Amino acid sequence: MFDRLFNPNSVAIVGASSNPEKIGYAVIKNMVESGFSGSIFPVNLNAATILKLKAYRTLKSIGMSPDIVIIAVPSAAVPEEIRNCVELKVPYAVIIPGGFSETGSEGQKLENEIRRIIAGSATRVIGPNTVGVYFPHSKVNTALTPPDRVSFPPAGSIAFVSQSGALGLLTMDSISEYGVGISAFVSLGNKLDVNEIEMLKYFSEDGNTKSIALYLEDIDQGREFYSVARNVNAIKPIVVLKSGRSEASAKAASLHTGAMASDDRVIDGMLKQGGITRAYNETELLDYARTLAYGKPFPGRNIAVITTAGGVGVITTDLISSRINGVGLSMATISRDAEERIKVEIVSFGSAKNPIDLTADGSIRAYEKVLEILMKEESVDAIVAYALPQTPKMNLEIVDAIARHVNDGKTVVVGAIGSLLAKELIVEFERRKIPAFPSIDRAVKSLKVLHDYGKYLHERGRT
Amino acid sequence: MFDRLFNPNSVAIVGASSNPEKIGYAVIKNMVESGFSGSIFPVNLNAATILKLKAYRTLKSIGMSPDIVIIAVPSAAVPEEIRNCVELKVPYAVIIPGGFSETGSEGQKLENEIRRIIAGSATRVIGPNTVGVYFPHSKVNTALTPPDRVSFPPAGSIAFVSQSGALGLLTMDSISEYGVGISAFVSLGNKLDVNEIEMLKYFSEDGNTKSIALYLEDIDQGREFYSVARNVNAIKPIVVLKSGRSEASAKAASLHTGAMASDDRVIDGMLKQGGITRAYNETELLDYARTLAYGKPFPGRNIAVITTAGGVGVITTDLISSRINGVGLSMATISRDAEERIKVEIVSFGSAKNPIDLTADGSIRAYEKVLEILMKEESVDAIVAYALPQTPKMNLEIVDAIARHVNDGKTVVVGAIGSLLAKELIVEFERRKIPAFPSIDRAVKSLKVLHDYGKYLHERGRT
Repeated sequence: MFDRLFNPNSVAIVGASSNPEKIGYAVIKNMVESGFSGSIFPVNLNAATILKLKAYRTLKSIGMSPDIVIIAVPSAAVPEEIRNCVELKVPYAVIIPGGFSETGSEGQKLENEIRRIIAGSATRVIGPNTVGVYFPHSKVNTALTPPDRVSFPPAGSIAFVSQSGALGLLTMDSISEYGVGISAFVSLGNKLDVNEIEMLKYFSEDGNTKSIALYLEDIDQGREFYSVARNVNAIKPIVVLKSGRSEASAKAASLHTGAMASDDRVIDGMLKQGGITRAYNETELLDYARTLAYGKPFPGRNIAVITTAGGVGVITTDLISSRINGVGLSMATISRDAEERIKVEIVSFGSAKNPIDLTADGSIRAYEKVLEILMKEESVDAIVAYALPQTPKMNLEIVDAIARHVNDGKTVVVGAIGSLLAKELIVEFERRKIPAFPSIDRAVKSLKVLHDYGKYLHERGRT
Repeated sequence: MFDRLFNPNSVAIVGASSNPEKIGYAVIKNMVESGFSGSIFPVNLNAATILKLKAYRTLKSIGMSPDIVIIAVPSAAVPEEIRNCVELKVPYAVIIPGGFSETGSEGQKLENEIRRIIAGSATRVIGPNTVGVYFPHSKVNTALTPPDRVSFPPAGSIAFVSQSGALGLLTMDSISEYGVGISAFVSLGNKLDVNEIEMLKYFSEDGNTKSIALYLEDIDQGREFYSVARNVNAIKPIVVLKSGRSEASAKAASLHTGAMASDDRVIDGMLKQGGITRAYNETELLDYARTLAYGKPFPGRNIAVITTAGGVGVITTDLISSRINGVGLSMATISRDAEERIKVEIVSFGSAKNPIDLTADGSIRAYEKVLEILMKEESVDAIVAYALPQTPKMNLEIVDAIARHVNDGKTVVVGAIGSLLAKELIVEFERRKIPAFPSIDRAVKSLKVLHDYGKYLHERGRT
């Protein structure tokens, strides 16, 4: 199930257009520019070609059944196109337009009509009211926003399922600058047919996917969702951003995607019980998904910090060890023996105690030696390692120096503060699947998520 | 006091070097490239010219007294140079090297020696153990890090005083990509002489400075600091990132800049009493300082949200109205009358209720009309306005559309989520002195800070 959706041989776009004002233009343009190796069929009653591709007057005139049909026509015309999909046995139809249940009873009727049309058929529907799908591994991009406004991330390990399409696009744009990749993006929209439960099941077995990020405004079939999510989360980490927490926002969500309110305390309890990571904003959602995709979960509480700037070490210590405005873990006590060995590697006015400070004098070689010592320290469960651009001897070689040791057993999360060299560093760490963040806060919070997940797995005997 | 420090006519660099391996190289290179219109005097025993500037063998051989002398020689040689400064009646000496009290009793002795040398003299000392100073308005840059590693922000309104130089450089690098400007950056280092109290006093009267960001590891002369900070904060907002909150980090801070631990509950109480904004990481420090520099403080609690993406509106509502994982303010109830007028401006499936959602159909014109209506709404105290790149009709014109109304009375904070067009938008908002942020969380937290400060001023009858 869903294999041909994520790895299609052919994609048709009903409502494809040469007019940049139309949604059907952005969709076909993204699809053409994505490098897709299969067939693309523009469908438009009045055009002979669109973006140099032969256009078809109707779906049926294509003469075969495309794996995916993207529907980019006004809502009133959608049922007819879905009927065509069913007749052609099209396996997947993605309905882009809004104007359905989120707008009231007339739209609800349209959705019910589509439900009746696909009942018992071979056609599955994503949407309506979706911004499309984006599968970088198979080079499918049917997003309705052109790539000069938002950027699309490279192929990677995070499956991102979003009930809100716009939030999905904006979040993908945010992570792109750090080279963070995704395995797939699905905008579920009104969830007329395909929902988050099926997506969880698919991604739990998808080889490209190492973690799953879910943005939800409501949860369909709560009991089944929690049961599936719990099982999936035990083998592949899930991060949930569930909005509509407050009464005010639950009301707003129902106006947005027709979501039904439910008590947030119940949701929170269910997520906690399943050890499922919860995010509270779009930055956390993808930071945590990324950390869990690459980072090693750990049940311990004792953290070591390596820095070349004392101030960064002090603030990190605050955030690690404070319960209020911090994550409430502990700073590891480095053994006397290790301390002596660290002292040999660093300048006399550095600190061999945790947070270990190599100072602005710190070289890549000394850094790696210290990391090696910490990797063998029993008292250390995880390490926050800083790659700080202001340090004169710091350069891109730090990436390989750290990469050589991330498999030595202990969890490593990297902080590279800044925007110039820091961004280059983060992109390189990302390539080597080491979670790296541009601020102290984001590094420490991501580390905490690895601890919570590690503790959950450990308590259930899974590590 | 300090006028010639921030607006010097001449700067000498003792230890200036043509050797890129030396700190004295980065310092003079930054100074030369900063566009400084006064005289730059490299001082080096063995060079005739440095970066094409005539070099002087000694300070005294310059033949005049520079306004600022940057000292970039090893710590043991510093007392001698300070003696020269005193004899020449140099008003300001900045001691860059470490190797003083932060390294133990030998270094402490060196500091005491310098204190004795400057006692009763006309020479004031910044540092030692500082990364230098950066004053973009007068084009002075004596930072020890070359600009290919970290970027320096443009001239702006935030005075940034940091006990940790590296943290200062990294934080400036972080804000630079959004075009956020500063009025001055001072790295205080070990605070042998000049401290944060004097800086607060100076910046409180500095015309370029609209808010003050302080990073501190310890607080000198606590009673006086709080009394000065409280007075300054009532007329010009201060944001404090005070680290060493936990026992573990207080220990780390003392190793870093020789800071003395003090009970964080006391510090927290004093800051609260003075209505001084507290930040807990480097991102918050400059976000809050920026918001307070431009944004209008407001004592009310009722927030309106304008969005063109429902999901962003729902998450914002959560963060505004939740006490846990949120800022605990309220969503404004829009009057029936305003709601009707908003409905005229937006598509039928948009939301005229708060959060107001123009949907992906939202045009700049409709957006501005809605903003105009909200600006006149009595029930609204402040507005979070989103400029979202995925919206087809969204473009840089939104900046002026919002700018036309920010002076209509209500506080506006902007969210522009993403990294591509979003970054351009934030830079343009920044030019118009409208605080804008790349994530929902940062926008909402910055709004909260304006509320807290507004409430403080209001309760003291200052608004």
